[in-house]
Amino acid sequence: MPPTKLAIVGVGKIVRDQHLPAIAADPDFELIATASRHGTVDGIPAFKSIEEMLESVPGIEAVSLCMPPQYRYQAAHVALSAGKHVFLEKPPGATLSEVQDLARLAEAKGVSLFASWHSRYAPAVEAARQFLASTQIESVHVNWKEDVRHWHPNQEWIWQAGGLGVFDPGINALSIVTHVLPRAIFLTGATLEFPENRDAPIAADLVFADSTGLGVRAEFDWRQTGKQSWDIVAKTAAGEMVLSEGGAKLSIDGKIVHEEPEREYPSLYHRFSEIVRAGTSDVDLAPLTHVADAFMLGRRKFVDAFYD
Amino acid sequence: MPPTKLAIVGVGKIVRDQHLPAIAADPDFELIATASRHGTVDGIPAFKSIEEMLESVPGIEAVSLCMPPQYRYQAAHVALSAGKHVFLEKPPGATLSEVQDLARLAEAKGVSLFASWHSRYAPAVEAARQFLASTQIESVHVNWKEDVRHWHPNQEWIWQAGGLGVFDPGINALSIVTHVLPRAIFLTGATLEFPENRDAPIAADLVFADSTGLGVRAEFDWRQTGKQSWDIVAKTAAGEMVLSEGGAKLSIDGKIVHEEPEREYPSLYHRFSEIVRAGTSDVDLAPLTHVADAFMLGRRKFVDAFYD
Repeated sequence: MPPTKLAIVGVGKIVRDQHLPAIAADPDFELIATASRHGTVDGIPAFKSIEEMLESVPGIEAVSLCMPPQYRYQAAHVALSAGKHVFLEKPPGATLSEVQDLARLAEAKGVSLFASWHSRYAPAVEAARQFLASTQIESVHVNWKEDVRHWHPNQEWIWQAGGLGVFDPGINALSIVTHVLPRAIFLTGATLEFPENRDAPIAADLVFADSTGLGVRAEFDWRQTGKQSWDIVAKTAAGEMVLSEGGAKLSIDGKIVHEEPEREYPSLYHRFSEIVRAGTSDVDLAPLTHVADAFMLGRRKFVDAFYD
Repeated sequence: MPPTKLAIVGVGKIVRDQHLPAIAADPDFELIATASRHGTVDGIPAFKSIEEMLESVPGIEAVSLCMPPQYRYQAAHVALSAGKHVFLEKPPGATLSEVQDLARLAEAKGVSLFASWHSRYAPAVEAARQFLASTQIESVHVNWKEDVRHWHPNQEWIWQAGGLGVFDPGINALSIVTHVLPRAIFLTGATLEFPENRDAPIAADLVFADSTGLGVRAEFDWRQTGKQSWDIVAKTAAGEMVLSEGGAKLSIDGKIVHEEPEREYPSLYHRFSEIVRAGTSDVDLAPLTHVADAFMLGRRKFVDAFYD
């Protein structure tokens, strides 16, 4: 099959770091246009808005939306209405309801919508899922602690209401946890720490359970300096499982059983191509639902102001 | 058919005011037990816990759960696991995920789950839905303003995290709006006002849109003294529609076109009987999804401390 003609909207850090190399290496896609207020890609026709881009380049078949979540619905609606397949960066939107609305629109237009969760494609995630399905889980502890100044320098949108704060990385952990555990979980308690000068939390402590009473604790913190942690630890009847480095490495009782090179974004585009060719969509809202639940159920605590 | 043998869990104000009269007047139900930490119903066997009640009265076929939402999942899980039909007071749970989990369990056990929204059964709601379907809507404004000291005196749980605060009445408005509008809406902006000594909001200002750009504004406030407002006003091509008194009365351009006696809870039990006999469930999470979205997307503002 000829490659799918793709456009990117919102050319920022994640596009340069991840999308462009993945697309360049994938014979299923050909990047033919971009739309962005500031960013451009060398050698690719660039537009200021998605409307202008779609009008000028009618051959576009699919669009990757990579702007901040607060601005994603409108662009997705324009693209789906024009009959284009849509790839949504995570999180897929600013609200659950708007993504549900997009899913209905994609179905009505007969095009594919992909709510992507890149961490689910980390190298050792599938091996962790299989291990957890094979044994009895006693408890799960998620530690997702990183230095926001290093990873999100001066990204103002992330601190605004709807920018999700520490849930921006934390939702990656939730996308893995909801994929590898054998049963659905739900939040039973949460504390969210807001810097007194910000509209989004800098830390969160979440307690989940599943229907069998399995306890899952998740700690997200953006104030971590020194060693960074993106670890999921499960105590099981078959030993202690550690899925570390954001899903890259799996060890059981200290022995590494799975470690492969990272290729999350190539896998995402492979999946996008798969659903486009199958004529289906892939929209799992479980990770964003847990975040919304945490904001609804969680206690708010105020902590020191944060300055970049 | 013989009446369904029913039990109530959580005997408080709403049970005495609404559930008991509705059940007493409905030949489809027979109340045969209650479980509650404090409340009892004259002449009905009373237990302290749902577990004790189900063990002592094996004939129970259905259970109405009326305790605060923070405690509802566990009881619902016990009841569904025991093969009982479950009626959930609004809101159906403390999180979206736990209600989704209950819906899966009900399906697996082949019993009915009813996430009830009593305001949808207010007398003029259906007439409003039909009117709005017949015309072009220009804008919608929801005013849901009441005096919390009058309606929720000393209800501490309502102010705790997960108790929803002003969304406890506000979700009634959302349950009507999501039912009467012709298309799904989604939140685009929100401000939530928290008393500085409470974990739940006392006021909320919400802005929604639908896919055609229709604007829907909702203002919830618990500090209203004097005249109370539970009104939904729609400007339309066929005139100004006012659905007032919580859905009881409908007027077009100031002329009352629909006004009947209130019978929300009798209608809820009629619906519950209908789904039990049809072997289906009725779980629409749209109102609670909007509330979770508002907590996730909304800006928090701090206002004067609130004392009962």
